Amino acid sequence: MSKRIGVVGVGRMGANMARRLKDCGYTVTAVYDAHPESAEALAKELGCANPRKLAEVTAVSDVILTVVTDDKAMDKIFAKKGDSLLVGAKGRVFINCATVSPAIHVEVEKRANRVKAESLEACMASSINQARNGTLYLMVGGKKAVFEGIKPLLVSLSDDGKLLRYIGRSGQAGQVKALVNMVMNINTAGLAEGLGLGSALGLDLKVLMEVFSQTGANSRVLVTDGEDMVNRDHSCFFSAAHAAKDSGIAYGLGQKAKLTLPLAKAALSQYKRMVQVGLGGLDKSGIAELTFKGRGPKKRSSR
Amino acid sequence: MSKRIGVVGVGRMGANMARRLKDCGYTVTAVYDAHPESAEALAKELGCANPRKLAEVTAVSDVILTVVTDDKAMDKIFAKKGDSLLVGAKGRVFINCATVSPAIHVEVEKRANRVKAESLEACMASSINQARNGTLYLMVGGKKAVFEGIKPLLVSLSDDGKLLRYIGRSGQAGQVKALVNMVMNINTAGLAEGLGLGSALGLDLKVLMEVFSQTGANSRVLVTDGEDMVNRDHSCFFSAAHAAKDSGIAYGLGQKAKLTLPLAKAALSQYKRMVQVGLGGLDKSGIAELTFKGRGPKKRSSR
Repeated sequence: MSKRIGVVGVGRMGANMARRLKDCGYTVTAVYDAHPESAEALAKELGCANPRKLAEVTAVSDVILTVVTDDKAMDKIFAKKGDSLLVGAKGRVFINCATVSPAIHVEVEKRANRVKAESLEACMASSINQARNGTLYLMVGGKKAVFEGIKPLLVSLSDDGKLLRYIGRSGQAGQVKALVNMVMNINTAGLAEGLGLGSALGLDLKVLMEVFSQTGANSRVLVTDGEDMVNRDHSCFFSAAHAAKDSGIAYGLGQKAKLTLPLAKAALSQYKRMVQVGLGGLDKSGIAELTFKGRGPKKRSSR
Repeated sequence: MSKRIGVVGVGRMGANMARRLKDCGYTVTAVYDAHPESAEALAKELGCANPRKLAEVTAVSDVILTVVTDDKAMDKIFAKKGDSLLVGAKGRVFINCATVSPAIHVEVEKRANRVKAESLEACMASSINQARNGTLYLMVGGKKAVFEGIKPLLVSLSDDGKLLRYIGRSGQAGQVKALVNMVMNINTAGLAEGLGLGSALGLDLKVLMEVFSQTGANSRVLVTDGEDMVNRDHSCFFSAAHAAKDSGIAYGLGQKAKLTLPLAKAALSQYKRMVQVGLGGLDKSGIAELTFKGRGPKKRSSR
């Protein structure tokens, strides 16, 4: 509990993880964000510093959690030159929670090791409420010994460790996460087609969803997204833009492996299309806007 | 219980439903199959007739269950001219259990009504063991009054009615069934891609499946088909050829409704490809033969 915590990237996920760690008795010493006003507001709330330099986060922290947008942002906060979390980082442990490419996790671990710091990837398969409540599903990649050393902190984020999984070497947790979201996005896109067609046929969608739930068509996304698709309630838990990004990472891994993945490709195309037509900010359930008659961008543009 | 039952189409499903009804105290009076030897063997087992004419089945039965291959076979057993179940069918109730197009269910109901018989569709979302044990998931379409009249018999096939659902007018149960299988096939094809890619990346597939089961990637087909995909155990419960047929029915409905269904199309293409390369007889889990490196038809032909 004596560890000093820094958090870099305090969007909704990062901010809630910082709040949770404070609730658990950790000292959050500094927060940082590419948008300084986000960091400032959170720093006020938590009573901690919000330095403008990344190196200053490292200076006052033993463990630094990062939750940034993408590979480019990861490359920037762990820059080899100039202001960087790596400056003065000897003995620090970085826990990188963003969904970024497995390759960047491997690269960041290398860079950290070079300055005698340690780095883990801790990929999350959960959302904002779970971050706040400390019930994140966490998949960790990196050195086993580093994982064991930092485990108590990870346990306080993952329902007393019930949702904590050590996956393997650096990069593998990110791969598993990408696969989870690839399969989830396929199931979501498929469900949207089933419900959209059911609607076009004039079927009772409540009965249809009940039958789905009791047969081979059942899935987690039926429970989480089915009603939202029918009711057009697409308030965002996991955005279509994120879905496109994650499916893109997985599809890229598939292309490198020279696999033919037509379902993954179709789901990726659908989520990309949502972004293209300006629906990327909707929840992933918003894909139903592309499959129900009379919904979606076509109708909008013809109004 | 005093009803005399005829069964037309005694493949594995039809034969097991006949056995189940006999166990429940019904009198199975006649069985018929396009392959006379199948009917003969079952007739010996059950101690009933196996007439060579369809009209003779109707003559000795009050209720006739049909479980035939496809629309063409439905058209043939309910032919308007020549030998047909409709000859002398006044007062009979037909229960048509095959997965055929919703349109043919509607047509058969019309033809039955014309000769003062009744017809229901009873679409099954279960397999051979469930037929034998009377635990079929049954979705019924047709006139509600006819359904209520024949309910006790349907109850004995569907786990005391716990798995019995009245869906709506004739054709709608077939539509729901087609949608169930369309979504199931999408989820199955997507799962095969996730596991195939996981394998190509060298991930521990047991861990990967555990993570899938605990996250948004979870689905019924993960439980029923996941291990079989990994272990290449594709002994047949629901064949790839059937999956191609059912996805084809659903996709056809979508085209009529002028919907764009890219996931349904991709899953249909995959199952069609299995049939084309001679894998149509494998269980639907066999789709993993198309997505794991070093498996599938390419490898076979290059041996």
